[in-house]
Amino acid sequence: MRIIVDAMGGDHAPEVPVEAAVKAANTLDIDIVLVGDENRLKSELLKYAYPSDKITIVHSDDVITNYDEPAMAVKSRKTASVVVCANLLKDGEGDAMLSMGSTGALLAAGLLIVGRIKGISRPALATLIPTKKGPAMLMDAGANTACKPENLVQFGIMGDIYMKNVLGIKRPKVGLVSNGEEEGKGNDLTKEAYPLMKKADFNFVGNIEGRDIMAGETDVIVCDGFVGNVILKTIEGMGIVVASLLKQIFLKNVITKIGALLVRKGVSDFKKMLDYSEYGGAPLLGTKKPIIKGHGSSNVKAVYSALIQAKKFVETNVIEDIKNSILEGNIND
Amino acid sequence: MRIIVDAMGGDHAPEVPVEAAVKAANTLDIDIVLVGDENRLKSELLKYAYPSDKITIVHSDDVITNYDEPAMAVKSRKTASVVVCANLLKDGEGDAMLSMGSTGALLAAGLLIVGRIKGISRPALATLIPTKKGPAMLMDAGANTACKPENLVQFGIMGDIYMKNVLGIKRPKVGLVSNGEEEGKGNDLTKEAYPLMKKADFNFVGNIEGRDIMAGETDVIVCDGFVGNVILKTIEGMGIVVASLLKQIFLKNVITKIGALLVRKGVSDFKKMLDYSEYGGAPLLGTKKPIIKGHGSSNVKAVYSALIQAKKFVETNVIEDIKNSILEGNIND
Repeated sequence: MRIIVDAMGGDHAPEVPVEAAVKAANTLDIDIVLVGDENRLKSELLKYAYPSDKITIVHSDDVITNYDEPAMAVKSRKTASVVVCANLLKDGEGDAMLSMGSTGALLAAGLLIVGRIKGISRPALATLIPTKKGPAMLMDAGANTACKPENLVQFGIMGDIYMKNVLGIKRPKVGLVSNGEEEGKGNDLTKEAYPLMKKADFNFVGNIEGRDIMAGETDVIVCDGFVGNVILKTIEGMGIVVASLLKQIFLKNVITKIGALLVRKGVSDFKKMLDYSEYGGAPLLGTKKPIIKGHGSSNVKAVYSALIQAKKFVETNVIEDIKNSILEGNIND
Repeated sequence: MRIIVDAMGGDHAPEVPVEAAVKAANTLDIDIVLVGDENRLKSELLKYAYPSDKITIVHSDDVITNYDEPAMAVKSRKTASVVVCANLLKDGEGDAMLSMGSTGALLAAGLLIVGRIKGISRPALATLIPTKKGPAMLMDAGANTACKPENLVQFGIMGDIYMKNVLGIKRPKVGLVSNGEEEGKGNDLTKEAYPLMKKADFNFVGNIEGRDIMAGETDVIVCDGFVGNVILKTIEGMGIVVASLLKQIFLKNVITKIGALLVRKGVSDFKKMLDYSEYGGAPLLGTKKPIIKGHGSSNVKAVYSALIQAKKFVETNVIEDIKNSILEGNIND
């Protein structure tokens, strides 16, 4: 198996992607294609020992950033790292791709170059979020700000398959984000989606409210990309505030510092729970080949986790299963 | 000043509303009208000492619950406590009203009985949420699942006035919830609202993301009621999870319990920050008279806080200021 890595994307590129790629080449049964500035990547790779046949470099001399208009940039800048990656993926030069760069550019490259699975009208960004009972999948986390009811049903189907295959959850509970649990609650979009989701071939548990998300009773949390993005960032923001307040509490004086020492194991577990890097990246579901978006601020551990995730994404045939699910008539285009 | 209290609404009615009313009659310069079952209220009041002229009872023999269809119930059940309260408020028998009962019923009573301020097409539920830098106002928190751009502008205007008058914030920062900070980001609703909010007569700071909310840089957080409800409940849910995880950490064994003792002041401050009861209730903004929704699970402290808030709501002429702001042409109906 070969994973294509956009080595120029993210806050710590190319150092972090290269170090994570080396770690993966040394420990996982995968080959890596690093896409980026050949000279910089070569000099980074010189720092490490690894089986030289497991990492190859494909040169690219341009990087699309968050400041570029994604679709336009992807269409016009053929030598940008994310564009080169997507073309390699499309041409079968790798089995999956990973980028820590601009989300918009990755989505555009996925849609315009790799292409949608036939029958899936809107691929979605599916983020794993921390909950009290382990990771849950939030989708769409920001790819589609305007959705139709059928899109939400497809998100449910794809999320169900991903959580079954990659995370090994037997019968994932799929919930629809709303402003109340009763079937009649919601906005126009969710009210129309509800009966369709009831009929769909997954374990639909009905509407879920914001307070249910972190409780972890639902495995796949379905909403449009605007709402999903707001949820994701609200959780992130609250995590940051909670962490900083705890730090204040513990660092206040000598007594509290001793207190902190006495509970350090628990606090470290707590931080670990809120730590995104444990969960790898966000799969883009609905494209013809596996694509994963890593967090822009990913450290080596996070990129390495995302590579493990990409491997499972391929091995467990998520995309074949989504295709089959559509053929069986679960989805209308 | 006289505040009308729906003594039958909420999880702990009538005990908690009555006890809070007594506390208010004894400590604040206000009179209270308790609306509910006369016999039950009388026997509750017998438990306490208070100046008898400051609390009066108006009998009602029906209660609308969360299981009733709000608008229909408000129209047909004239002796329901929330309906009696709203009629008293409309008829000038009190200066403000407070209910811990069904949110839907209170909204319906506010709209159908008390009525909208001329020019305000959609009154909104405005909730104070905890942030790192003190309370911020989230509106709409659930009254309107479908909004037009003009509604969001009006939410900004009303929230601005409330935060100035009641919370004493000099120049409240008003932000629009979106999936990105740039002006071009958002769904159709927020993209259309953005230029209108830029022109409005308040301190518009542009789009804000979920992660900015808890950081507390924005005083008035504007969004439609579906998104607002999801944000509010996500924060609530995360607060519950964080509190339960901290408890687990501290109660693990003797050592961690000693640790907990050493940081107890900080943890108690932290819990206080996340404690809704500190912030009183949620004002419904846009009706002709002050209406406040208390949390259904409110304890005495929370109801008492909401009564203080109702008093400030009246004293600081929020409603007059909203009316004037409309007359000055800030709002188009």
